[in-house]
Amino acid sequence: MPMNAPFPAVRIRDEFPVFRHHPDLIYLDNAATTHKPLAVLDAERDFYETANANVHRAAHRLGSAATDAFEGARHRIATHLNAAHADEVIFTRGTTEAINLAANSWGRANLRPGDVILASVLEHHANIVPWQLVAQQTGAVVRPIPLGADGNIDPAAFGALLTAEVRLVALTHCSNATGVLPPLQPMIAAAKAAGARVLIDGAQGIAHAGVDVRALGADFYAFSGHKVYGPTGVGVLWARRELLAHMPPWQGGGEMIDRVSFDGTTFAEPPFRFEAGTPPIAQAVGLAAALDWLDRHDRPALLAHETALRDRFEAGLQSLDGIRILGAGTARGPITALAFDRVHPYDVAQFLDGYGVAVRVGQHCAGPLHQWLGLNGSLRASFAAYNTGADVDAALAALATTLDMLA
Amino acid sequence: MPMNAPFPAVRIRDEFPVFRHHPDLIYLDNAATTHKPLAVLDAERDFYETANANVHRAAHRLGSAATDAFEGARHRIATHLNAAHADEVIFTRGTTEAINLAANSWGRANLRPGDVILASVLEHHANIVPWQLVAQQTGAVVRPIPLGADGNIDPAAFGALLTAEVRLVALTHCSNATGVLPPLQPMIAAAKAAGARVLIDGAQGIAHAGVDVRALGADFYAFSGHKVYGPTGVGVLWARRELLAHMPPWQGGGEMIDRVSFDGTTFAEPPFRFEAGTPPIAQAVGLAAALDWLDRHDRPALLAHETALRDRFEAGLQSLDGIRILGAGTARGPITALAFDRVHPYDVAQFLDGYGVAVRVGQHCAGPLHQWLGLNGSLRASFAAYNTGADVDAALAALATTLDMLA
Repeated sequence: MPMNAPFPAVRIRDEFPVFRHHPDLIYLDNAATTHKPLAVLDAERDFYETANANVHRAAHRLGSAATDAFEGARHRIATHLNAAHADEVIFTRGTTEAINLAANSWGRANLRPGDVILASVLEHHANIVPWQLVAQQTGAVVRPIPLGADGNIDPAAFGALLTAEVRLVALTHCSNATGVLPPLQPMIAAAKAAGARVLIDGAQGIAHAGVDVRALGADFYAFSGHKVYGPTGVGVLWARRELLAHMPPWQGGGEMIDRVSFDGTTFAEPPFRFEAGTPPIAQAVGLAAALDWLDRHDRPALLAHETALRDRFEAGLQSLDGIRILGAGTARGPITALAFDRVHPYDVAQFLDGYGVAVRVGQHCAGPLHQWLGLNGSLRASFAAYNTGADVDAALAALATTLDMLA
Repeated sequence: MPMNAPFPAVRIRDEFPVFRHHPDLIYLDNAATTHKPLAVLDAERDFYETANANVHRAAHRLGSAATDAFEGARHRIATHLNAAHADEVIFTRGTTEAINLAANSWGRANLRPGDVILASVLEHHANIVPWQLVAQQTGAVVRPIPLGADGNIDPAAFGALLTAEVRLVALTHCSNATGVLPPLQPMIAAAKAAGARVLIDGAQGIAHAGVDVRALGADFYAFSGHKVYGPTGVGVLWARRELLAHMPPWQGGGEMIDRVSFDGTTFAEPPFRFEAGTPPIAQAVGLAAALDWLDRHDRPALLAHETALRDRFEAGLQSLDGIRILGAGTARGPITALAFDRVHPYDVAQFLDGYGVAVRVGQHCAGPLHQWLGLNGSLRASFAAYNTGADVDAALAALATTLDMLA
């Protein structure tokens, strides 16, 4: 496809069976989870029907086929990320488990009393609570990276926090609540120059902007399958090989060991050291299919399409009273978060649902951000490949009617 | 179906698409993973096509449908287990993560220096290594429960280990390596009388004998979806409600919190406290479908079928020289583990694979058991609902030819 062709959202929508079952669905809750194209559903089913077996050390052809499918998925995901080595890809249940793995394994090996973990006020709970839990165990402290008036991080203010005690910076690629894009490149460079490690929560970012982990320069990158057109039950922690080599195991069990005895146990090399038990095999295959599916499309055109939908939505909001777009003055991904002057966002979302418009309302697992915003909750519309201008127009019409009724 | 009707394995085989793709496959590696019936594959696919959304707190109908499907799965699984309450069912990635959750949450809250964890020599690494890791963190020690000459646990010898320092007993429902069934009821009773908690690894047991957690009397029961005709990527930790109520969180993230701030975070009630992040939603639905599928069959007839296959296999082995059945003199589930006098089990398995017979060879993640057996590895045939007498006869013929060739 030529680089500047518009993204073929209407055609792509046909690849998503959910819209055959719900033809009138206007699904703008993509930051919570995306729907799955046939390519992903078929890849998982095909695995179960043709290659299902447990992986590694099998003495039969089906076991080899399963292992090839699973390790092939790891290689394809590594290629998608532009990772230097496939063994830098560790399969987890999702972003949350990936961050818990980093916090427990890297954190407990490296954090000492008085050490500082910086996490931004934009972070999802998944990039705050694991650090709080490991801080309790190690004597480290978690400090917030504050936001400027525009709802984004000021790199200069961030730089002032980078004392010698800072060991790790936990930062989102794209806020799941407001879509705000922190200035990653200068922040990562400053953190690395100060000797800190950097973990990026890519749960939202990978689906929109995409990621090149080598160009990004962070130490860890975490993401989920189900938010990037893949299955539930799978995610990835990417980490640089030289870091993983020195990280101790977290969960214990089969596959992650070298030799087990009651006198003492030794552990396997990465990535297996971090994948205790039977991994999410079919789901890893499905995730690789999802990233393959994304790679078959023109990613800049996809991001332009999603951004154009967001802009069309936000332009339409200008004719409605009493609405504030959160983070409107800074760089954002294709997510629009709204606060209302006179109505409760829960009521708005309920009415929108009556018109078949699915949005999310609440704090979106971003409590500190909402405390900073002074809001109990917000209403979020988030855009994906299969959304169309007609979706946006219908959502705007439903919102206008809703606000009239609630006024 | 009348209670004493034979189990309809040939008809049931038609419900498993893997055998349409591999009509000549003789799959005797069921202890590693089982195949999936259409009912399970369709339940997962149906979820993705008709009800896919993230669960809990959604303000739209699809989110409610997803939550109903997910929480409905929890209820159906609780009913299958005869759990007293649905909130005693915690979704994990599998048995291994379930045991790691118990070890980290219960263990770190309850284990003190000098405390003893008893784990039997029969255990899978998943029921040893998590306890070793938490012992290192708490100062507790892990001690083996030895085996008698028959390869099983002598309850009297076990009783002698139950000192006042014993806080937890980790025990398999059914050895994954030899099929040996430890004397659970007297061991659980003795452990409870001595004030210890008991965790049962049900990864194998639930698929064959089934389980009634209230009748069993243990404190924790862990199992995987993929070994009981369900999907990969999902498993369950069942624990009694009063234990869960006092267990601290392990993984941190969304859904498991009450309120998050940088000043401190409070946590949700069970089961959500233990389910950080987006759970394996479609997989939980698939696991419930697998247990529903099992419940539609005559479970005693199924177990009798599998046991008859094992007995037919072992009777046929009598005409072959140089083979020893491990644990032959004690109670066993439908698993046969073999040692060979004159040939290497890996070579045997390779030849069997050439005849389309899938078995497993190695230590089966049971290193201490193989150290006790004095074996580098064994060959394991394990039986499931879709296996037939013809499978057994073909496996025996292939084994006889293989031993002739290797002699």
